[in-house]
Amino acid sequence: MNVITSKDNNIIKEIKKLKDRKTRSAKGEFLVEGFRFVEEALKSDFEIKTLIIEESVEDKLSNYNIDKYLDKVETIYVTKSIMKILASTETPQGILAVVKNKDIKLKDNEGFYIFCDKVQDPGNLGTIIRTAHASGALGVILRKGTVDLYNDKTLRSTMGSVFNVPVVYDNDDLDIIMSLKNKGFKVVSSSLDTDYNFYDIDLTGKCIIVVGNEGNGISSEIFAISDEKFKIPMPGGAESLNVGIATSVIAFEAVRQRNFKIKC
Amino acid sequence: MNVITSKDNNIIKEIKKLKDRKTRSAKGEFLVEGFRFVEEALKSDFEIKTLIIEESVEDKLSNYNIDKYLDKVETIYVTKSIMKILASTETPQGILAVVKNKDIKLKDNEGFYIFCDKVQDPGNLGTIIRTAHASGALGVILRKGTVDLYNDKTLRSTMGSVFNVPVVYDNDDLDIIMSLKNKGFKVVSSSLDTDYNFYDIDLTGKCIIVVGNEGNGISSEIFAISDEKFKIPMPGGAESLNVGIATSVIAFEAVRQRNFKIKC
Repeated sequence: MNVITSKDNNIIKEIKKLKDRKTRSAKGEFLVEGFRFVEEALKSDFEIKTLIIEESVEDKLSNYNIDKYLDKVETIYVTKSIMKILASTETPQGILAVVKNKDIKLKDNEGFYIFCDKVQDPGNLGTIIRTAHASGALGVILRKGTVDLYNDKTLRSTMGSVFNVPVVYDNDDLDIIMSLKNKGFKVVSSSLDTDYNFYDIDLTGKCIIVVGNEGNGISSEIFAISDEKFKIPMPGGAESLNVGIATSVIAFEAVRQRNFKIKC
Repeated sequence: MNVITSKDNNIIKEIKKLKDRKTRSAKGEFLVEGFRFVEEALKSDFEIKTLIIEESVEDKLSNYNIDKYLDKVETIYVTKSIMKILASTETPQGILAVVKNKDIKLKDNEGFYIFCDKVQDPGNLGTIIRTAHASGALGVILRKGTVDLYNDKTLRSTMGSVFNVPVVYDNDDLDIIMSLKNKGFKVVSSSLDTDYNFYDIDLTGKCIIVVGNEGNGISSEIFAISDEKFKIPMPGGAESLNVGIATSVIAFEAVRQRNFKIKC
């Protein structure tokens, strides 16, 4: 086993740069960390460029079926101190993977998308992606200005769901949402200014559920293209719900309506 | 304005001890931190024992209507370094309150409770309490073994909802849940081992919705007293949902069913 011990090693320097958003974007690569997350990456259809393993954790690889990938993926071993430099957590588990971004084609069959209109908190975005995966959404669309998907906190909060549900960025011109709208998708937006509750609107066809920024909600540009608005009633009188929670409530209402429809 | 400058001051020493769970429990007091949270505490029907204000933030008090409470509540001023000792956040806003626990009587009218069977994560418990408040739950019951309600992370995650929805601890003998059950409350528990989805069960009467520990789910003692089980279907194939998310889905299904009932 060759172990890289110097932080000045070129491979290490290149990997370390992926902690910076601009580099990630320019290279089309991102880092994932920890046994379960790396396992999810390896099992997925994303391409893994490099596995980085701390020399002392080699005996744990088989617990996560990572050992069987070692001859298929470029693997480098590093010391504990190098791992500490590359990892984002305070007490790294000792394994990282460099993953390549994937070209994602969005489907336009029956189903629902979740569109994030500039959600800012990495934990919220991660929760939304995890919910999208669980609820069987067609995908998650992130408006430009949404927190970085490949931020380590966002990725960690997805609990691996980022590899199991398509996630794409829309541009300033909203090309993706407009194209789906032209293909028959209804845009339904979360709002405080509506009489319709989340269970009053039909979520069974093709639809895009829009959730907004933590502070400002949904922007006027998105309201302008919305077909329907919904609110989540709060009979207990709280002022607001976290956007991750709100997304789960509406996404599983879509699940309920779709299953209910089948029963009829 | 008298400003306490010494960390050896007796009042400061007593307040600092409230950072320890055992002291909080023995004294029946807890600490809340930050302008909005202290404002919520002052507006609530909880008794505020002491306000602790950093000398430099006095001009911000009126933004949160805290100034009008100063002659009604014992108030002490401290230096920035003392505030740093007492506060739990890394960059304290400069205001704390010592709040007294409140005797809470649970209602047994129509409605639903949320029962936490040893939830461990402070953020999850906080989210559950916030959801209980928003969805109009009668209250939240914490089984012994659930994470401390008065932990600063739990309190912060409730976003002030802890002052707006009754939260109580049940004991080892489950006296509270058993007493509610005897008063006609149905116990419905989250489970992976059931054919019933969350929308298949009737949540309109008196009921107690049970959610479980992050790792182990709901315990056999609680299943033994459960009247019905429900699951949250995950058509997308994710392995699990966060317990805070799961609670929101079922709580707002209860809201939906209750409102729907009124319409019929």
